[in-house]
Amino acid sequence: MKHDRGLLIVLSGPSGVGKGTVCAALRPHMKDLVYSVSATTRTPRTGEVDGVNYFFKTKEQFKHMIENDQLLEWAEYVGNFYGTPRGFVEDTLASGRDVILEIEVQGALQVKEKFPEGIFVFLAPPDLKELRSRITGRGTETEESIHNRMTMAKAEIELMDRYNYVVVNDEVDKACERIEAIVVAEHCKKERQIAKYRNWIEEVF
Amino acid sequence: MKHDRGLLIVLSGPSGVGKGTVCAALRPHMKDLVYSVSATTRTPRTGEVDGVNYFFKTKEQFKHMIENDQLLEWAEYVGNFYGTPRGFVEDTLASGRDVILEIEVQGALQVKEKFPEGIFVFLAPPDLKELRSRITGRGTETEESIHNRMTMAKAEIELMDRYNYVVVNDEVDKACERIEAIVVAEHCKKERQIAKYRNWIEEVF
Repeated sequence: MKHDRGLLIVLSGPSGVGKGTVCAALRPHMKDLVYSVSATTRTPRTGEVDGVNYFFKTKEQFKHMIENDQLLEWAEYVGNFYGTPRGFVEDTLASGRDVILEIEVQGALQVKEKFPEGIFVFLAPPDLKELRSRITGRGTETEESIHNRMTMAKAEIELMDRYNYVVVNDEVDKACERIEAIVVAEHCKKERQIAKYRNWIEEVF
Repeated sequence: MKHDRGLLIVLSGPSGVGKGTVCAALRPHMKDLVYSVSATTRTPRTGEVDGVNYFFKTKEQFKHMIENDQLLEWAEYVGNFYGTPRGFVEDTLASGRDVILEIEVQGALQVKEKFPEGIFVFLAPPDLKELRSRITGRGTETEESIHNRMTMAKAEIELMDRYNYVVVNDEVDKACERIEAIVVAEHCKKERQIAKYRNWIEEVF
């Protein structure tokens, strides 16, 4: 029998919530999960491998990808372009493996426009006072910078409504277990199973 | 903070698929899960406790429950009535605990009419040939009875479309893990989390 198509899990959430930590901690939980590889125009650092850490592109190549709708999202950051190549995601899903993409809220909502069938998971602080103390606790930022980050965090939480799931990051391991449960449950959704049984009914009866 | 409301999980599936075995095996996996207690008009057997094994009712009491819409579903079986009291389910959900109800397909679809916000899980055989051999393998049934059961199984599988999830019962432990994942994921659904964060935004900002 043909394998099922994989799922795209988009893990996002407000600045300071711990997306990177949770995403890294998922590896031992979900060994078959494939991490999306970004395209970038920045120069490779020592040891970085093309196609593993990033797909390294010239600005001309990157613009060509934008024009040909080959990116699920992209952004410019301090003079360099970063984006999520659609081809890598599509090929991995077609091979039956699930892909995870860790991304800022703005990028996630871009992905949702191009790939609405993705599973959009909002990683949320256990409470907002906790988020404030995480942002303040970095100790490296001015009052104004903290105010700006909190304003952004508020706006991002208001965008929670655009997501499918909200995972509370109270403990990293618990957050990982919830994300794993979401992926298992999504594979059990009736829409993803029923075609197989309809085919079998025709074969067996 | 107020606790979240519990979820009603309705576990159903075709005759012979192993609903009872999976439902019993869930106990060590999900210690907080409350098992729905049925109402019945049959006589208690030795050792059976009212409110634990069943709610024992007279036929008059049972008919009163039907007339007052106090049952999520009911059926008559060899002269006795069996049903799912709405009050027990509602009270348990209100206390923040999840309830599981194991039931035949017809009953599950009755529950869906009265309680559409339930999580309807269809327990499915790993393949239909396997289901046929389970039904045949009981060794106690005539050809005609096997034919009837297979016809029912086909009809029940066609009703899979009315469910939210399909859990394949290839191994009892794996089926339990999938059901557990579904419950965890359902609690993470955005609709169930967002009100809490909207309230917090008003408090913190």
